[in-house]
Amino acid sequence: MSVTPPTAPSFVLVRPQMGENIGAAARAMLNFGLEHMRIVAPRDGWPNPAAVAMASGAGRVLDAARVSPDLPDALADCSFVFATTARDRDLTKPVYTPEAAMELAAQKIAAGQRVAVLFGPERAGLENDDISRANAIVSVPVNPEFASLNLAQCVLLMGYEWMRQQGNFTPVVQEMAGTDWAQHSEIEHLAKHYEERMEDAGFFYPEHKAASMKTNLRNMWSRLPLTRADVQMLHGTLRQMVRWKERG
Amino acid sequence: MSVTPPTAPSFVLVRPQMGENIGAAARAMLNFGLEHMRIVAPRDGWPNPAAVAMASGAGRVLDAARVSPDLPDALADCSFVFATTARDRDLTKPVYTPEAAMELAAQKIAAGQRVAVLFGPERAGLENDDISRANAIVSVPVNPEFASLNLAQCVLLMGYEWMRQQGNFTPVVQEMAGTDWAQHSEIEHLAKHYEERMEDAGFFYPEHKAASMKTNLRNMWSRLPLTRADVQMLHGTLRQMVRWKERG
Repeated sequence: MSVTPPTAPSFVLVRPQMGENIGAAARAMLNFGLEHMRIVAPRDGWPNPAAVAMASGAGRVLDAARVSPDLPDALADCSFVFATTARDRDLTKPVYTPEAAMELAAQKIAAGQRVAVLFGPERAGLENDDISRANAIVSVPVNPEFASLNLAQCVLLMGYEWMRQQGNFTPVVQEMAGTDWAQHSEIEHLAKHYEERMEDAGFFYPEHKAASMKTNLRNMWSRLPLTRADVQMLHGTLRQMVRWKERG
Repeated sequence: MSVTPPTAPSFVLVRPQMGENIGAAARAMLNFGLEHMRIVAPRDGWPNPAAVAMASGAGRVLDAARVSPDLPDALADCSFVFATTARDRDLTKPVYTPEAAMELAAQKIAAGQRVAVLFGPERAGLENDDISRANAIVSVPVNPEFASLNLAQCVLLMGYEWMRQQGNFTPVVQEMAGTDWAQHSEIEHLAKHYEERMEDAGFFYPEHKAASMKTNLRNMWSRLPLTRADVQMLHGTLRQMVRWKERG
């Protein structure tokens, strides 16, 4: 049991059945940097070779997993516990979306609290007796006519929301692949070059439509997010057309 | 091809290999109400019995799937295309998080546009040639030291973000299990009842601490989110203590 305050929630698999699913849950967790797994009364004992085989690169999550004989033992040092469940329960308990739950978890962890998220056995999910030990319910808002999340998928979605709450990634970035946005003068030059060649090529016809055709063309170049590399390439295509035309 | 404007994005599986993964992707989609699947050049042809077997309850997603020989055919009627990819590409292209991507998708779809999201083949993902046909990249922010999302998991996360963007669920609800929150007067009454019994029991001792002990107790009752059922139960415990005491 670690003594330093945790920086992430523990994910607690309650009475998991198939070793493969325990391994898949470990993989799902590690995708989002989560390494604290706890396991309560695994059906097939522990360690479980099928879990290890499935976990592959995420084996260290299993190696560090804490195995408990029952839920109270697994939760002894936790101060806030979420229970994941798909269906309504006859229990008075706040129900959070994954987003709201992981936001609350992040706040509590920042305040030095130890937070756990419970995941039930594959077939039936958590029992009301398990849920009665949790502070709150987390429910993934799935299609009510088709809810088929398996254990690792449920773990994956909670892990994803945890990583989202960390906010350590920007919503939109731009890969520039070594080039830069074209400046206005470069776009102007391109528009002019294009118009001249199209003029040469007799594109602006009939005459009474020529002015609006030019405006539309110029407007398009201005609107497009062109890079310097794009602009160079477009100049090149125009020059190539001329060469092609001049070859006759 | 439907003529009415779509209300959700199409998910396009590009050159998928295993039928099982196509079926699992259909399940992942239907969990979040997504039914428009397109499939480009599936390795094992179409229809695929392994896909059907895996899809089980989500078979209608496969039945309605549109199969294309190549990506341009699959995207012909789409006006905005996202390409999912895990690694950096040498392409100038905006990169969105799933959240930002599905927010933009929702805006475009609300404006009557047809939006597609591309998912690459299991082993290698989309090729740069595929990505060059997309308007933007979507990248799931996974642990850079362990990124192991499979096809259906990637579909699941995008579907989840799509449903989140629909905002048709409240972030936190409260299951009340047939009871209601206690009103202020009921909490007052409980606090008074408790204090009186504790007074009777000699709890507020030593005397110079009695006032602050009472304040703390009353403050606790006010702070707790108690239901009417909780309040009745707590009154009952106090009455039972009295009965127990009177039995001597």
